[in-house]
Amino acid sequence: MKATINITLKNGVLDPQGKAIENALGQLGFGGVNGVRQGKLIEIDLDESDADKAHANLTDMCEQLLANTVIENYDILIDKSE
Amino acid sequence: MKATINITLKNGVLDPQGKAIENALGQLGFGGVNGVRQGKLIEIDLDESDADKAHANLTDMCEQLLANTVIENYDILIDKSE
Repeated sequence: MKATINITLKNGVLDPQGKAIENALGQLGFGGVNGVRQGKLIEIDLDESDADKAHANLTDMCEQLLANTVIENYDILIDKSE
Repeated sequence: MKATINITLKNGVLDPQGKAIENALGQLGFGGVNGVRQGKLIEIDLDESDADKAHANLTDMCEQLLANTVIENYDILIDKSE
């Protein structure tokens, strides 16, 4: 079973990387950009075939390793098509 | 209008960061992980209210700046709820 975890900075946390992208887009002539935030995307391929168990497992992974929950939010998307 | 761009490494491109996460998960005792790939997630807030124009604009941004199309794929998701 495949899952995607989106990890984004919480609101209010400074995002210099996003700011740099925003400035670079402006310099390339792309107007009308009000804000850019950069996050991480992690794709995991698991043996687990039960979606609920996989979700619980992935939550543990996020809490323990993948996300810094002080400054980051995570969102787990499980691909049930397989 | 808000949009999210998912940037992932193409298949076959080595992903040492994903490999490091996979190893770290193993060391923490998470079994049954067959593979991990790490990508980027970029959230952009645009003035543009027309979804088609926004999509075209975002495609240009990806081609010119956001993604390295030699080794990365990008996927543009436009949030039409606003």
